[in-house]
Amino acid sequence: MANVTIVGAGLMGTATAYPLSDNGHNVRLVGTHLDRDIIKSCREKRYHPRLRCELPPTVQPYYVDEIAEAMRDTDIIVSGVNSLGVRWIGKTIGPYLQAGQLVIAVTKGLEVTTNGELVILPDVLASELPAGIRNQVELAAIGGPCIAGELARRRQSCVVFGSRDREAAERLAAVFRTSCYHIWTTTDLLGLEYSVALKNGYTLGVGLAAGLSEKAGDSDMADVHTYNMAAAIFAQGCTEIERMLQIVGGTPFFAYGLPGVGDLFVTSQGGRTVRLGRLLGAGHSLAEARQIMAGETLEAVEIIRAMSCALPKLVEGGTLAPDELPLMRALIDIVVYNQPVRLPFDRFFKNIARA
Amino acid sequence: MANVTIVGAGLMGTATAYPLSDNGHNVRLVGTHLDRDIIKSCREKRYHPRLRCELPPTVQPYYVDEIAEAMRDTDIIVSGVNSLGVRWIGKTIGPYLQAGQLVIAVTKGLEVTTNGELVILPDVLASELPAGIRNQVELAAIGGPCIAGELARRRQSCVVFGSRDREAAERLAAVFRTSCYHIWTTTDLLGLEYSVALKNGYTLGVGLAAGLSEKAGDSDMADVHTYNMAAAIFAQGCTEIERMLQIVGGTPFFAYGLPGVGDLFVTSQGGRTVRLGRLLGAGHSLAEARQIMAGETLEAVEIIRAMSCALPKLVEGGTLAPDELPLMRALIDIVVYNQPVRLPFDRFFKNIARA
Repeated sequence: MANVTIVGAGLMGTATAYPLSDNGHNVRLVGTHLDRDIIKSCREKRYHPRLRCELPPTVQPYYVDEIAEAMRDTDIIVSGVNSLGVRWIGKTIGPYLQAGQLVIAVTKGLEVTTNGELVILPDVLASELPAGIRNQVELAAIGGPCIAGELARRRQSCVVFGSRDREAAERLAAVFRTSCYHIWTTTDLLGLEYSVALKNGYTLGVGLAAGLSEKAGDSDMADVHTYNMAAAIFAQGCTEIERMLQIVGGTPFFAYGLPGVGDLFVTSQGGRTVRLGRLLGAGHSLAEARQIMAGETLEAVEIIRAMSCALPKLVEGGTLAPDELPLMRALIDIVVYNQPVRLPFDRFFKNIARA
Repeated sequence: MANVTIVGAGLMGTATAYPLSDNGHNVRLVGTHLDRDIIKSCREKRYHPRLRCELPPTVQPYYVDEIAEAMRDTDIIVSGVNSLGVRWIGKTIGPYLQAGQLVIAVTKGLEVTTNGELVILPDVLASELPAGIRNQVELAAIGGPCIAGELARRRQSCVVFGSRDREAAERLAAVFRTSCYHIWTTTDLLGLEYSVALKNGYTLGVGLAAGLSEKAGDSDMADVHTYNMAAAIFAQGCTEIERMLQIVGGTPFFAYGLPGVGDLFVTSQGGRTVRLGRLLGAGHSLAEARQIMAGETLEAVEIIRAMSCALPKLVEGGTLAPDELPLMRALIDIVVYNQPVRLPFDRFFKNIARA
């Protein structure tokens, strides 16, 4: 049995405790400073208030100031924070890491450097680790369609574990895999991370359709939706994920597998990213939408902002033509430049004409 | 202005009348023998009872026995029947066709010959035309995510017109294209038809997830769905569409564009195919599901049945390995062989391991 330390007691981090506990592993669930109420509930009632689930039996909850104890003799660390907490987690676990440990992150996103280079989050996390340990631990990430509440309730879920080190990915998969948590492994960590990060941006795009319909006063028509528009945005998003994978040297077919289209589908079924898109489509500014959705992490905004810095660099370098990724450009106009929603459908699907 | 004759006054056939009318074309809408009530309503009230829409101004409704008149001096014929009516429509319009006319079909499906060869529906239609005219008209088809009710209400819709003849596809697109009906053209009619036919089968697969959840008694849990499972099925479906396109020499990227993933997405948002999947997932036999859904055309069943005849042939010929298309095989077991629903998740996504 392994010792696994989950840092970040939000929905997704905590949800990984369920397959781990089902496999009999010892799980230490460490809340961040934002998770105090959650840990209190977990300690007193063994109940996770956001997942609305009982904690599984082999899980021990810890406050963040008890992290030293939670990291003792651990084998695997799960980074359960969101994209804004990645540097924090690197700094926080760094002092306790030991050679041979594995770190796996549920976080989805991309960071952009000041000169417009995109960096995947496991590399951001690694950059915060002490130099002496950085190459002594393997980093990995989880991608694919997995809503936390379903995983915690043991619904069938299919995900991908990526690590540049094949053996690390396989070792991790063997620890987490259950009869309802199906895991594939890949060494294309880069492609996996780009796919699952970009899908957040494109999900916001899918959400625009319902908002535009509301704005036009169409949404009261019984049974008539804007699924045609949503589907076109969905398909263009998938096409653009594939193009970005080509550009960065990722596995193109992730676009139409679990990490791309699978994750895009699950996120498009509802939740905060679709809701944000809907608000923007209905005519709210990002500032207004942020106010309405106060307290929610809007990772789609971060990825679209990162892409707004990266695209000019890619065009400048000649890897991307100025008319490519028209949907992402439209999302940038809306989210970063506060422009009214305009979707350039006729610039989508350039590849069809070549077929 | 063109004369356009739509044969089949169901949802999708009739919906194409809206962009046509918006462009000022003369549209003759011919009901089949199944559409008598629809045509009666269209004549008396200019109201389509299934679309629940007023008929657009330039549309004239015809009963099937008036087809000679409706075909007079026409430029374009739209085949608006479902997959079971394709041979009928070939026989019906054949005698009236004239050289240079264009025939475009909204029908989605594949037929299988007695020796297991798959045939796309435009070729089935052509085979019913008199030999003298068969090569004098160009056949085309419409694919991509387009729910009829949304098209009729002028929601933004993006579709693909396919014809082996580039010029025919372009001419047709120019007649139908409006500011809300966006059209791309392709000469890969085969790839287009395979994509949109297969997505019906895979949509049934997506529907299974909700049914399995109902059966397990999970569906009463507030806000907890089986989207993870649905997403995995969705992604595997997309992967299998891409594989089939490779096998038949279609354009592989249709799988993650409008014809594949776009159409799969729109169909998965609801409607009869998802509903059928849900019933099967909940434990109903196909016979029971058919009874519950009496009167609905279940095109997913037809495509899965066609694939059940075609797969052994493909394996025999060495183009397909016996472990490929595991989701389609599972659907065949359920739909054709009345087996209980079993989804072999661990046989999905074989390609990830190779990345």
